[in-house]
Amino acid sequence: MSDSMRGRVAVIGAGVCKFGERVEADYSDLALEAFDEALTDATIEPEQIDAAWLGTYTPAYGWGVSGASLADALRLYGRPVVRVENYCATGMEALRGAAYAVAAGQCDIALALGVEKLKDRPARGLPRVGQHPVLAYGNSAPGLFALAANRYMHTFGIDRTPLAHVAVKNHANGARNAKAHMQREITIEQALNAPIIAEPFGLFDCCPVTDGAAAVIVCRPEIARELSSAEPVWIHGIGSSGTSARPQWEPGYDYVGFRATRQASLRAYEQAGINDPGNEIDVAEVHDCFTWTEITNYEDLGFAEKGSGWKLAVDGVTALDGDLPVNPSGGLKSFGHPIGASGLRMVAEITNQLRGRCGDRQVAGARRGLAHNVGGPGAVSCVTILGQEP
Amino acid sequence: MSDSMRGRVAVIGAGVCKFGERVEADYSDLALEAFDEALTDATIEPEQIDAAWLGTYTPAYGWGVSGASLADALRLYGRPVVRVENYCATGMEALRGAAYAVAAGQCDIALALGVEKLKDRPARGLPRVGQHPVLAYGNSAPGLFALAANRYMHTFGIDRTPLAHVAVKNHANGARNAKAHMQREITIEQALNAPIIAEPFGLFDCCPVTDGAAAVIVCRPEIARELSSAEPVWIHGIGSSGTSARPQWEPGYDYVGFRATRQASLRAYEQAGINDPGNEIDVAEVHDCFTWTEITNYEDLGFAEKGSGWKLAVDGVTALDGDLPVNPSGGLKSFGHPIGASGLRMVAEITNQLRGRCGDRQVAGARRGLAHNVGGPGAVSCVTILGQEP
Repeated sequence: MSDSMRGRVAVIGAGVCKFGERVEADYSDLALEAFDEALTDATIEPEQIDAAWLGTYTPAYGWGVSGASLADALRLYGRPVVRVENYCATGMEALRGAAYAVAAGQCDIALALGVEKLKDRPARGLPRVGQHPVLAYGNSAPGLFALAANRYMHTFGIDRTPLAHVAVKNHANGARNAKAHMQREITIEQALNAPIIAEPFGLFDCCPVTDGAAAVIVCRPEIARELSSAEPVWIHGIGSSGTSARPQWEPGYDYVGFRATRQASLRAYEQAGINDPGNEIDVAEVHDCFTWTEITNYEDLGFAEKGSGWKLAVDGVTALDGDLPVNPSGGLKSFGHPIGASGLRMVAEITNQLRGRCGDRQVAGARRGLAHNVGGPGAVSCVTILGQEP
Repeated sequence: MSDSMRGRVAVIGAGVCKFGERVEADYSDLALEAFDEALTDATIEPEQIDAAWLGTYTPAYGWGVSGASLADALRLYGRPVVRVENYCATGMEALRGAAYAVAAGQCDIALALGVEKLKDRPARGLPRVGQHPVLAYGNSAPGLFALAANRYMHTFGIDRTPLAHVAVKNHANGARNAKAHMQREITIEQALNAPIIAEPFGLFDCCPVTDGAAAVIVCRPEIARELSSAEPVWIHGIGSSGTSARPQWEPGYDYVGFRATRQASLRAYEQAGINDPGNEIDVAEVHDCFTWTEITNYEDLGFAEKGSGWKLAVDGVTALDGDLPVNPSGGLKSFGHPIGASGLRMVAEITNQLRGRCGDRQVAGARRGLAHNVGGPGAVSCVTILGQEP
């Protein structure tokens, strides 16, 4: 039904701005910072960008309404620029749009750029809670994910310790990353003894609120080969899927994982020709909005059986020097989670891991990697597989 | 640079709900109404939709945040559903996303659905004027378009009469359309004597505020041929382009038309192999948010020289029985303009015109048609060309 993506779309540029509390910078500044790095990386000029996809979730300060916001920030006039939005998968959906356009032969070189400012918003820009499909019912993100985490812990007989292992690992990785929001190591004890946000999540089980932007430039294979100065990696597959906007309230919901992630990853694996993801993926960036989310992601992505994912964290399998390093960047936990930027920030990390450019946090011998977002209360998911070879 | 779209994507289903003041229906009801008609038209089942693109500009009532809103309304689970937004070109951008996915071989059958409720919104859902890139500066849509209309009228020496001809034509067409918001004919005198909204625009120079939804189903050529019960038309080209979010404030802006429309249409014509649009297009739906906008569209789309488009309206060239009928549906003027729906409502009209299904408002012998949106204050534009033959 769905043609393979192998050999059809190359990533030639990746850029990420410094994530954090960027009150001195506006949306356009953050977008430009990421764009400039991606352009330099791709060794192209802005005029060579044929089309762009903007990923941003919550427009504010007159920025983020329509693709024209991005066109103005980057002076990308006279070409298509459109905005896409899909909860916390917004950034990776921008890449899906750009990659399809290239695969369809509708442009030679396309930009996907995601940006969000969450630290510094006008009062009127705050989520309109009364209208939000989930928040309107009195549920916050920590609360909703905590419901599932509690059920998981009860069902599979674990306490908060495995969650703390995820926090410690991702803080250790973030401490090696100059662009991460949080650059400090923590201990298991600190994680376990931190103030509770929503039981079982303490402060260190939750990703921070962050400003940031990330950009990925994709192109046709011929272009990637012509640009001898660039160092391309290749898209092997992109899967996207969704359930209800309120999956946790469906009668059949088991509260121990996310169907959208399972569905999106199966599509991506099929396109990439991957049968055993736990062995065929060398490095992954997964959506750790909460520490428990990373654990269920291991299972929903097929790295472990349902109910046993927590062992990968406890046993160090997903540590930087483990068999399957996950979130070498520090993850949402340390890098931060500016919604529209996160998916592209992950794809940028995997791109640079496959090129061996990640310095202190480089995963040795990484040849194929995965990036994963889950959005809303598990409502949508997007998975991208990248490889060194076409 | 950009491959042709000819022969690659078929439109097999088009559906439009009754437009108007639909206070009895919510977003989901409107979406379902359009979807059901498109499904019946395509002679397929919902399970056959592989992926969907939602076009909606201003989420409200907890609806329109992420593709999951549409997934819930139509029960389209376990597949990709993403939201796109690009000012008033939002609906046609949803079609661009779906068409690229099909052309890229990433799905067999894809849905583009646009919906907006503008008559009936919670106070908190109103545009946040203080943050809007244009409205924040004290400019409303009528005011901004009136600036350009005044300059045009001064430059080319016309009074309000040609604008009134557009209003009379589009009201006459809308009077033949049971789904239009406004179904009444008006006279030139009524148009000229109506209360002024923003000089030179009177009440009948402005499109109404409307609720509505429209859906278009596209597929691969093989599928279109297998579905002997469907009656496909074909996408010949899609162009999208943009300028600044504030084109009217750029030093070089001439105030007599929209560059984004010119750029988008040139791309679409190139893909479709059209050299003389005024003669090669048989029927068009163009973005008549204001009567003057339709006049400049004639010129920016290449149907007439700059400064002479108004003659097409005065001379009846664009009337239903003219040489190049424009807005046979009644246009935004009579059909209404629910932002995310409009582009797809136009594509549905052109689809049915090419199939000869438009009854009292059928354009005789229409074999190739065009649909056009312009969004924001001329900031973005999208143009789709459809034909009877692949």
